[in-house]
Formats: sequence, structure tokens, C-alpha cells
Amino acid sequence: MLIEIPDRKKARIVIIGGGFGGIQVAKVFKKKEVQVVIVDKNNYHTFQPLMYQVATSALEAESIAYPIRKIFNKSKNIFFRLGEVKNIDHEKKVIEFNNDTLEYDYLIIASGARTNYFGNEGLTISAMPMKSILESLDLRTVLLQNFEHALLINNERKKQGMLNVVIAGAGPTGVELAGALGELKRSVFPKDYPELDLSKMNIYLVQSGDRVLPMLSPKLSAKAKKYLENLGVTVVLNTRVLDIFGDYVQTNTGKDIIAKTLIWTAGVTGNPVNGLPDGTINKGDRIRVDEYNQVKNMNDIFAIGDVACMETEDYPNGHPQIAPAAIQQGIQVAKNLLNKINYNRDFKPFKYKDKGAMATVGKNKALVQVGNFKISGFIAWLMWMAVHLMSLIGFRNKVVTMFNWMKNYFSTDAGMRLIITHFDLQEEKRKRRKEFENRQGIK
Amino acid sequence: MLIEIPDRKKARIVIIGGGFGGIQVAKVFKKKEVQVVIVDKNNYHTFQPLMYQVATSALEAESIAYPIRKIFNKSKNIFFRLGEVKNIDHEKKVIEFNNDTLEYDYLIIASGARTNYFGNEGLTISAMPMKSILESLDLRTVLLQNFEHALLINNERKKQGMLNVVIAGAGPTGVELAGALGELKRSVFPKDYPELDLSKMNIYLVQSGDRVLPMLSPKLSAKAKKYLENLGVTVVLNTRVLDIFGDYVQTNTGKDIIAKTLIWTAGVTGNPVNGLPDGTINKGDRIRVDEYNQVKNMNDIFAIGDVACMETEDYPNGHPQIAPAAIQQGIQVAKNLLNKINYNRDFKPFKYKDKGAMATVGKNKALVQVGNFKISGFIAWLMWMAVHLMSLIGFRNKVVTMFNWMKNYFSTDAGMRLIITHFDLQEEKRKRRKEFENRQGIK
Repeated sequence: MLIEIPDRKKARIVIIGGGFGGIQVAKVFKKKEVQVVIVDKNNYHTFQPLMYQVATSALEAESIAYPIRKIFNKSKNIFFRLGEVKNIDHEKKVIEFNNDTLEYDYLIIASGARTNYFGNEGLTISAMPMKSILESLDLRTVLLQNFEHALLINNERKKQGMLNVVIAGAGPTGVELAGALGELKRSVFPKDYPELDLSKMNIYLVQSGDRVLPMLSPKLSAKAKKYLENLGVTVVLNTRVLDIFGDYVQTNTGKDIIAKTLIWTAGVTGNPVNGLPDGTINKGDRIRVDEYNQVKNMNDIFAIGDVACMETEDYPNGHPQIAPAAIQQGIQVAKNLLNKINYNRDFKPFKYKDKGAMATVGKNKALVQVGNFKISGFIAWLMWMAVHLMSLIGFRNKVVTMFNWMKNYFSTDAGMRLIITHFDLQEEKRKRRKEFENRQGIK
Repeated sequence: MLIEIPDRKKARIVIIGGGFGGIQVAKVFKKKEVQVVIVDKNNYHTFQPLMYQVATSALEAESIAYPIRKIFNKSKNIFFRLGEVKNIDHEKKVIEFNNDTLEYDYLIIASGARTNYFGNEGLTISAMPMKSILESLDLRTVLLQNFEHALLINNERKKQGMLNVVIAGAGPTGVELAGALGELKRSVFPKDYPELDLSKMNIYLVQSGDRVLPMLSPKLSAKAKKYLENLGVTVVLNTRVLDIFGDYVQTNTGKDIIAKTLIWTAGVTGNPVNGLPDGTINKGDRIRVDEYNQVKNMNDIFAIGDVACMETEDYPNGHPQIAPAAIQQGIQVAKNLLNKINYNRDFKPFKYKDKGAMATVGKNKALVQVGNFKISGFIAWLMWMAVHLMSLIGFRNKVVTMFNWMKNYFSTDAGMRLIITHFDLQEEKRKRRKEFENRQGIK
């Protein structure tokens, strides 16, 4: 059925995805003479950089998720529709949901990235991703369940598997998660689980390259590694995780690691939409765009952010898949479209402004690099806090998050470690894995 | 397998259930010469009186759930085990989980109450309960999904069904939920859904008796009804909900009500544990206990709170199934046991102290009755707030809840209306309903 939204004005611009890019586009269009419809399978925007704090119970989901309707409830020309886009029909100029279709004059694809398992089906089934609120909550549940279950068994090997955690991938997500787990191990779990010997809990951060946080300078990488090790994290370099079987993780060096939980933060790939012409989507599942973020040969379709790949001289493989690139592209595309619709002006090409990179490892420990300016430690941590607080949407989120962070700082026992779940994810994963192994003839 | 917990001291006391009663028992035993093991299928205590605020997105789950480990992490003699009790073997003196058993010297059953559908299988499948955190989150999800879906359809009748809500049962839970929905309808939804005509949203509160909040005086009941009507709630008295079919609710008066969502708060029943002797459990699924909360003919098993039924002269059908009764019984049982274990003293009988009753309908609107003292309006609302804030466990919960409530007071757009769910509950309910109807031969 055709979704009706009255008052289309000069044009209807449909945005697929309410991430950093999509929200930014809509913000530029606020109160302009166009109708904007944001479409997302979730009714909220996710502040992805803090997902690891939800996974480790430091923040509740409500602090990093913000309802899209609420962001725009004072903007009469911005609309929202909940739904998963199944296809684009670019000849009819509609996007298709399960039962419904929505017409567009201009389409902006901002559907982001998803976890990349590089085609390894075993990993896809058995590893834990952390790329959405739901996945972060699942991870929290599994980590806490393992500790609860460890108390119910006497077999030392099985107990070891339940306490240990392997994180594959030492980008910002992997490093921040490893640091947060290190703090839990040191300060929180000993209080919650006095009956467990926490010195036996091992956190492994496994990285294929020769240093953590490879987007930072080697010096900052070394600093981050030291921070991690001080928090009790075992950093394993030059090693690739191949798979996880029951309670051991297989690596390419031949050394197995005992652990029932493998968290996969070792790569992302584009999350494109069906229906674009052949050749539009590259090997990384990103949509090829020109310097105006326009999809090749499509006058009225644009792609921005993680899902877009603009090959330039400085960035031959596209821009980094991070929030600032998505936001900058969103602003440029929106401005270009406004100028075209209102004044029939030509598009201006996109120029990426590198804002630097930062990551935190734990309390008082962060790393910041902006051009040649490099800093680590307490001041870097304050900068990290300020940048993240400022970027959170909404007064409530800022205050509640600030409150939680301050409490975390002065207390060593903050956070609500709740297991709220409908079903046994681990049991489900076990079943799916068994089916897969039976299919493969693995015994 | 036998669960091992070292240092059993003079006795091991196992408490089934971490609700108001169970937690209270453990608090009395803090630092005493006994080992206490709390067993619950959730790792948190739930502050049930505020669940309606989770269902209506005013509070996040973290504000009303508190990890049981955290409550007792300074008490070395209090232990927690996560698990669902399947059976009591009172001859072997163990409780049984799926794979494990746990020995007790004394057992205190504080397993609470569950929703009572009075044997109506259709209602059990199709109505929405609100008796746990998960159920409150499900209810939130369904209410928000219905509004999102209403925007995707043109059929007026179907749209009406999605907007309307029927609440069966006008006890405190039903009344508070109806009031909160009334406030959403008046102040919040018009901003979130400017495209919907909110005047078409109807909230029906259906009560079998002739007044709402029957535990209060008729005068306060009348006041509550007026408050509800001012908030746009339609109060339907002397009517019983029979079932819900697709998008209409059937009542015993022959008048159907159009609504896709039926919330069932019309009764609770005990939630006992298997394994007690015949005749121990009464018609209301409550465990018969004597004046010491001792289960009939069981010297070492006690039951307290909602699951217990102590027939006394003043309360021939047992005490009211509310928190104060559970807390008072918990204190008495714990003290009796301590006196017996330490000094071999006789048990003292339980005496219930009626602390009165209160309910809120919305901002500035509450009703309080303590003996002959009756009050309604703003002062009653402040009293309601104070009592509930003081009862919330944990500094963080108090501060965050207070912050949220203050924000709710001064703003008309507080709360995070997030749809965070793994699966389509409504689709699942539809399927189960269809199977049921096929079994019944209903067409």
C-alpha cells in the first residue's frame, strides 16, 4: 500500500537510516520548503560510540538511544516512518517495505555499516557482535549469565571458559570494551562475585596487526597497550581469530585461547539497500558515489556515511567509516539539494575535514590525536568525555550520563548489572551452531 | 548436581524469591550466624509499584530494578543463585532446579503472585499482563508499535483499534496505568504523532465492581474516577471483560469495545512452588500457613507475602497481597528463626499492621487513606512520591528517578519512548491465538 504523507511541498526527500548521517541531513532541512521522511527499522537514533558502556552496564540503553520523533517534534516538515526497507525501485521512484511503498523525489541512503565476519559462517553464528543497542544488551546479558553459571559448576576448565572473554579487533570499539571489562574485573566483579577467584578471569584483546588503535600514531598505540595491560587485559598482537568452538577460540598462530565468549569488533562492512544497479556496490558492500555523494548514474539517489564509498586522491578506498565523515557528508548533500531545489544551483563537491581520532581505555586514560597534536592520560580523558557528552542528543541524556559518569568516577561500584532478556541467546546460538556443523559434516 | 556454598554456619536458610518479602528476610539475617541463599529467576529485585511508569516510558527499567547481588555485596553471609526453582523435595530438604539441587535447613518461600486470568485461555494468550519488568517493556513496545503502525494504514476501523486501549481491572495498577496513558494522550503523543488525530484515542478502564480502587473509601473512589475522566479516560463500571478478538474487546454486557490492546490488571493469584503436600495450596494458588507463616505440617518451610495465605479473624481470606504485608511477615519470620536457632525460643505469632493504601492518577493527583485519615490531590501526590522514593533501593535509583519525575513535572515531554525488542510479540500472540482457536474449532 502507498504510504500517504500530506503536504509534500517542493519535494519529498526520503532518508534511509537515522544514524549520524541521516539525522544530520534532516537537521539541515528543518523548516525548509521540502518534506523530509526519515525511515528506520528502529524508532531511535543510536549514539554508537558509547555502546560499549551499555554492554558493560555502565550506562542504560536510554542514555545512548534517542527517539527520532523526539529529535524533530518541533519540525513540522520532518516526518518519521518505522520500517525496514526491502528494496528501492528507482524507476518508479519508490522504496519498498514488506507491505508498503513510499514515493520519493530525492533519496538519501544513510543505512550505515554492519559487522563484517569476512564470510566466516561459524563466526557469524557463534561470535557476539556489538553494533546495535540490542546486541549491546545481549552482550551484557551473556557476560553476566556466564558469571552466574560459573557459580553453579565445579569443573575448573568449564569455569575458566565462562570467566574468560576474547575480543577480536583492537580498533576503538575493541579497545574501549576491553578497558571497560578490565575495570569491571578489577573493581566491580570482586564485590558482586566474592565466591569467584577473579584473578582467573582473563580478557584477551586479539589484533591481526602489530599494534592496537592503528589509526593513531605508534606512540599513542603503545601507550594504549600499556593502559590496557595495567587494567589486566592481555593484548595479543599479530594474531587472527579464526573461530570459536564450544569454549575455546581458535587462532591462526595455532595457539587456542580458552573462552566461551568471543566478541567480534574486527571489521565492518557497508549495509546497502537492494535495488541499485549492478556495479554500484563495491567489494566492501559500500555504495560507490561521486564527489557529490551521488550514486553513479542515479540523479536523485545519494549515499552518505559508512555505507557510501567516495574514492578520492586522499582516500582511494573511501573515507573512514566514522561519525564525522557521515555528518560532514550529510551537511554537504543537504545543502546541495536545497540549492538545487530552490535556486537550481550546481552541486558543490564534498571535502573531508579530518577531525582526528580519540579513544578511551578507562578512568583517567584516553588518547587523542588531531593532526600533529597528540595527547594521552587525564587531560585526553577529559577531552574524550567533553566531546562525547556534547554529541549526545537531548538534555536528559546529557544530565543522566554525566551523573552516571561522575558516580562511576567516585564510586567503584556504579552501573546496574541487570539480566533482562526474553530468551536464552546462548542456547539458541548453540543450536544454530550444531545445525551448521551438521551441515558441514564437522563432528 | 549439588550446588556447593561453603561456610554454612549454624544453618542455611534458602529464600525463594527476591521480591519485597524475600529481600526483607535477608536484610534481617545480615551479619548473623546463619548462611542465607536467595534464589530468583531474575538477578534483580523489582520495585513493582512503579512498573506502570516503565510501561509508559516515564522511567527506564534500571530505575525500578536493582541487582540482588548489589543489595547484599557488603554482607558476607548472604548469597545469591540465579535459577528457576522446579521443585521442593521436603524429605531430602533440597530445592531442585533444572540440573542442580540446593540443600536447605530452613526454606522461606516468597515467590509472590502472578497474573490471574481465571482459567480463560484466550485471555492468557491475547491480553497483555504487567507483572514483571519484561512484561512492562513488552507493553511499552506494543503501545508504541501500534501508534507507528496506525500511520501506515488508511482503514479507519483498523486505525481506531490501534489507537484504543482497554485496561481490565481498576485496582491501583489499572488506575495508575490508565492515568499515565491519559497524560501521554494529552501531552506527549500529540507532539510525537502530529499526523494522528489524538482525540480519536480512547482509553477504557473496565471494572467489574461499581467503583474504582475498591480498597479505598467510596468518596476517594469517586474522586479517583473524576481525576481519570479529567484525563480523558473512559471508566466503565459493573462490566467484566470476557475476551479480545482481533481488534475488539468482548464484555459481559454485550457491548464490545474497539481496541487491539487489552491490558489485564484484573487479578493476581499465588505463584507457589511444586512439591508441597496436597492440601497445602488453596484455591487462590496461595500456600496455607499458620500464624507463624509456617507451612502446615512442615517444620522447616515457611511462606510469606503474596504467595502465603494466613487465615485470621480479621483477614479470613489471608492478608492483602501488597508489599507491606510481605515485608512485615518477612521481618517476623526472620526474627522467629533467629531466636529459635540462637536461643531455641518459641515463635511469636504474626500481627498485621495496616499501613493504609495509596494510588496516583497523574500529576498532582493522588489518593491516600490511612485508617480514618483520607486525603486527595496535591498533598496526597507529594505523599505518594515521598513514600515511593523512600522505598526505592539504592542512591542512584532515587536520584535518577527523582530527576526524571521533576523533569516530568516541569516538562510535558519527558521519557524516552524507545522500541527495543528482539521479536514481534504481537505476531507471536496472533499465531498462538490462531492455534488456540483452531484447537477450539472457533472460526
